[in-house]
Amino acid sequence: MEFAEYLPIWDRLTPQQQQRIAEVIEFRNVKKGTHIHDSSAECLGLVMVRSGQLRAYILSEDGREITISRLFEYDVSLLSASCVMPDMQFNVMIEAEKDTQFWSIPACLFKNLVDDSLAVAAFANSLISGNFSELMWLMEQIMWKSFDKRLAAFLLEERSIDGTDSLKITHEKIANHMGTAREVVTRMLRYFQSEGMVKLTRGTIEITDTRKLEELVHT
Amino acid sequence: MEFAEYLPIWDRLTPQQQQRIAEVIEFRNVKKGTHIHDSSAECLGLVMVRSGQLRAYILSEDGREITISRLFEYDVSLLSASCVMPDMQFNVMIEAEKDTQFWSIPACLFKNLVDDSLAVAAFANSLISGNFSELMWLMEQIMWKSFDKRLAAFLLEERSIDGTDSLKITHEKIANHMGTAREVVTRMLRYFQSEGMVKLTRGTIEITDTRKLEELVHT
Repeated sequence: MEFAEYLPIWDRLTPQQQQRIAEVIEFRNVKKGTHIHDSSAECLGLVMVRSGQLRAYILSEDGREITISRLFEYDVSLLSASCVMPDMQFNVMIEAEKDTQFWSIPACLFKNLVDDSLAVAAFANSLISGNFSELMWLMEQIMWKSFDKRLAAFLLEERSIDGTDSLKITHEKIANHMGTAREVVTRMLRYFQSEGMVKLTRGTIEITDTRKLEELVHT
Repeated sequence: MEFAEYLPIWDRLTPQQQQRIAEVIEFRNVKKGTHIHDSSAECLGLVMVRSGQLRAYILSEDGREITISRLFEYDVSLLSASCVMPDMQFNVMIEAEKDTQFWSIPACLFKNLVDDSLAVAAFANSLISGNFSELMWLMEQIMWKSFDKRLAAFLLEERSIDGTDSLKITHEKIANHMGTAREVVTRMLRYFQSEGMVKLTRGTIEITDTRKLEELVHT
């Protein structure tokens, strides 16, 4: 029952509801790069991350991507259960960015819980509100911020997630996070390099001037 | 008690809850152009539109706007009650696009209802999910659709809302809906005119070839 610790509303469920979850909850251990949810497949349900890192993104018809949310240890997400939410129509893909362990509570059971329990309904509410805020923030970034600031913020975020100045990430991957083309990323990174903020080597972006990147984000 | 008809969950409330709403609900009659909600003012609460037209938008620091939602007769919105939703942090402005009559249920009361009633919690859930879907759709448009398609879709939507081919709207207003600059709108409208899709006169955009605009949207 280790998962109970990862479900913030566990203590507010009835013993019957807890029992029902314990019977059907699934645990998975997936390798980096695994696609754990896409819009064409069956709805995965509520996801609770034990370790690792997931990213939720949307995909255009011609294959471009943009990251809308990232999930870390102890994060819980309904983006993989949009099928159970009323008036929710969109296609989200989820993939593992690192080797990841997670539990999932099947969509149909979670929907029953939302319908029966005020605590679960309030929890679902707060999850969706959180996603909505994230999306709003992202949209403001895309609409109003220039790409140099967004890229600088992204590099600093990666640095903070990975705990290193030496980022192992391809320009292609960054483009997929940010909803743009690889060439655009490469061009801007070269500009950052010419300004002494990063040093580019094969497969690695080394952050050489954190303060300058931070200044760029905040001006 | 005419408002009961505009609140889809009215019949699922207890007599006490109905009574409480009836005591504090506010009715307002505002002129076109009135700002009824902004992020700096007190949280307005749940809005129910009796007649007219509202638009919710976000505003950048340097004054640019983008429309995220429009409300018509019988629409109910929580965008003006973000203060009561958990984990919801963003700034939405709401203004009347036409002379508008609406009711509002104060945020604090609505929050109490969400906390006490499964029906209200589920309703709040569906409202937020709906907003989330709208925002997702908008983001996909902004990310992947070229501006000519978005503008054509906007003109067709206005045509359908106003029920006329003769749109009384300034280029500036369109720019504020779409999160772009007036010059960009003017340039594209002139191109549409050269293609015979619209005719531009002072203060009016006349749609002259609906089918061609529709084709542009769908190719």
